[in-house]
Amino acid sequence: MIEPKNPSKTALDSLGEFALIEHLTKAATTALPSTILGVGDDAAVINHDGETVVSTDMLIEGVHFDLGYMPLKHLGYKAVVVNLSDIYAMGAQATQILVSLAVSSRFSLEAVEELYAGIYLACKTYGVDLVGGDTTSSKQGLQLSVTALGTTSNTGAVLRSGASDNDLLVVSGDIGAAYMGLQVLARENDVFKANPNHKPDLEPYSYLVERQLKPEARKDIVSLLEALEVIPTAMIDISDGLSSEVMHLCQKSEVGCRVYEDKLPLDPQFISVCDEFNIDSTTIALSGGEDYELLFTVKQEDFDKIKGNPNLSIIGHMTSKDQGVSLVTRGDEVIPLKAQGWKAF
Amino acid sequence: MIEPKNPSKTALDSLGEFALIEHLTKAATTALPSTILGVGDDAAVINHDGETVVSTDMLIEGVHFDLGYMPLKHLGYKAVVVNLSDIYAMGAQATQILVSLAVSSRFSLEAVEELYAGIYLACKTYGVDLVGGDTTSSKQGLQLSVTALGTTSNTGAVLRSGASDNDLLVVSGDIGAAYMGLQVLARENDVFKANPNHKPDLEPYSYLVERQLKPEARKDIVSLLEALEVIPTAMIDISDGLSSEVMHLCQKSEVGCRVYEDKLPLDPQFISVCDEFNIDSTTIALSGGEDYELLFTVKQEDFDKIKGNPNLSIIGHMTSKDQGVSLVTRGDEVIPLKAQGWKAF
Repeated sequence: MIEPKNPSKTALDSLGEFALIEHLTKAATTALPSTILGVGDDAAVINHDGETVVSTDMLIEGVHFDLGYMPLKHLGYKAVVVNLSDIYAMGAQATQILVSLAVSSRFSLEAVEELYAGIYLACKTYGVDLVGGDTTSSKQGLQLSVTALGTTSNTGAVLRSGASDNDLLVVSGDIGAAYMGLQVLARENDVFKANPNHKPDLEPYSYLVERQLKPEARKDIVSLLEALEVIPTAMIDISDGLSSEVMHLCQKSEVGCRVYEDKLPLDPQFISVCDEFNIDSTTIALSGGEDYELLFTVKQEDFDKIKGNPNLSIIGHMTSKDQGVSLVTRGDEVIPLKAQGWKAF
Repeated sequence: MIEPKNPSKTALDSLGEFALIEHLTKAATTALPSTILGVGDDAAVINHDGETVVSTDMLIEGVHFDLGYMPLKHLGYKAVVVNLSDIYAMGAQATQILVSLAVSSRFSLEAVEELYAGIYLACKTYGVDLVGGDTTSSKQGLQLSVTALGTTSNTGAVLRSGASDNDLLVVSGDIGAAYMGLQVLARENDVFKANPNHKPDLEPYSYLVERQLKPEARKDIVSLLEALEVIPTAMIDISDGLSSEVMHLCQKSEVGCRVYEDKLPLDPQFISVCDEFNIDSTTIALSGGEDYELLFTVKQEDFDKIKGNPNLSIIGHMTSKDQGVSLVTRGDEVIPLKAQGWKAF
């Protein structure tokens, strides 16, 4: 039990449902002109000029997160970020979120406040308004559902289906680190269970752990592409792992793809910790998941605008569908790319 | 266990997450012109001319529903209806929904298909498009989160805050029946537990049970008011019980209210079953909850347009705030209205 009942903390059932919602949402002031009405009515009212994109995700304790590693404030932050990532993956800017929360009586009011502190911090960081949601009790554990809304620029939403033969395949940031961060946390947790006096030294793993516990969504990439005047032909977020999302892009766009192993953007800390764990870094980079980076395709003529940008790596190119989806290894072997995306079941 | 593991049924983990989502959403064809892009990308894309209203609700097994009484198809239907009701309560027409579902391994694929059959039936009945969602495993039980979107007419969203002194208070349909339906189902379930050969005769309770198991949202009332050229000054859905929602309207609108006991619309079956259970019908009508009816206020000059309409009952009028929120009993006593709304904690 992470949050045992504690007499010095406030029991959730000491407030009614309405009082609790009011307490948790009193900080939900709205800032965007598109937010006409926020929390407090039957529904929120928004007004986007043109297209609205909307996405929703559910996070279940014991399936998507472990409160043994994940502080509640980080959980709140991450729950928002993973949803915003889906909005940015449409080439859109996120504008509003709604948050539904179910918690068992093992959680105190203070614990739920921590969670909300993370939610509000994410709202502030990404400039989105919290406009609604639901708060209820659960039979067991904590369940979170976040819905995010966004608005596209004049050029419209960027779908998964727009990639063509010869387009360049680009990924933002670096990949694999979030997965290795989780391995580090799991190992430290095992050591802690065996010896509760053990003081973990996470310093050598700080980047990996941060990628796992406090991921950021690539709002900046949407703005960067606009500034570079690059309109991606297709885009997807790679939270389920690079391979699996390359497959999705290819399937939806009806094209094939070649990904080059030596072009995969890997952080030095990631490489050295893969060595330490004796794990193949390419396998993790391709299949790790939880990197909230953007994978997109651009026309060949945009090469000059993209190349050398420290935020972007050209990792391959699209081909005709019949050429399949392949990885070109460092040894110049061409092998089929396997999707080993994260499975919730 | 409602859905024990059964070798003749398909285990959910025999499909991957992506295959399951694809299987469940293949029927999610979209019909509305405002749905630009439905299921299958990082986010859905919609385009409403003007305001969008958005609301979300979470339904937790063991808290909001009991699969001992509630067939999965009905649950899917009801989960959609309760969310649409919030959209209609803004004077808006519902257009799209997103559904997130977490299920434990005790559920088979066939069980989840039943749930989706109810979701699709509700979409068809109410003319809304299923445009997105999430499907994942849970540690225990079934959790559902539905987000509904809608669009307002030219006159904009109807808020809770617009009621004035002297406005008439109107409720649609009749109230209390859903709560008594649950009492009937709980009684039959107890009898069944004691004697599994017992065959329940629910015929005399058919209306009440239907109000509990297959509630409908009042899409028709939004259209009716438009046809009558009545613009409500304030509106709310009364799923949490009439008293508590009258209090909300008054609080948000900064007015008082008088509700007349003899004006409360009660179904004859509801009255007779309250007698049978020896429960005061007014108490249940005021506090029962789960009646997905609309409560709204209109200007006095709209009286002629409303009166005598079989779908609408004028149950009171608003007063100045200092007169408080009262019930005028059949004996002409004026007593303070108490909010005994349903509490999730």
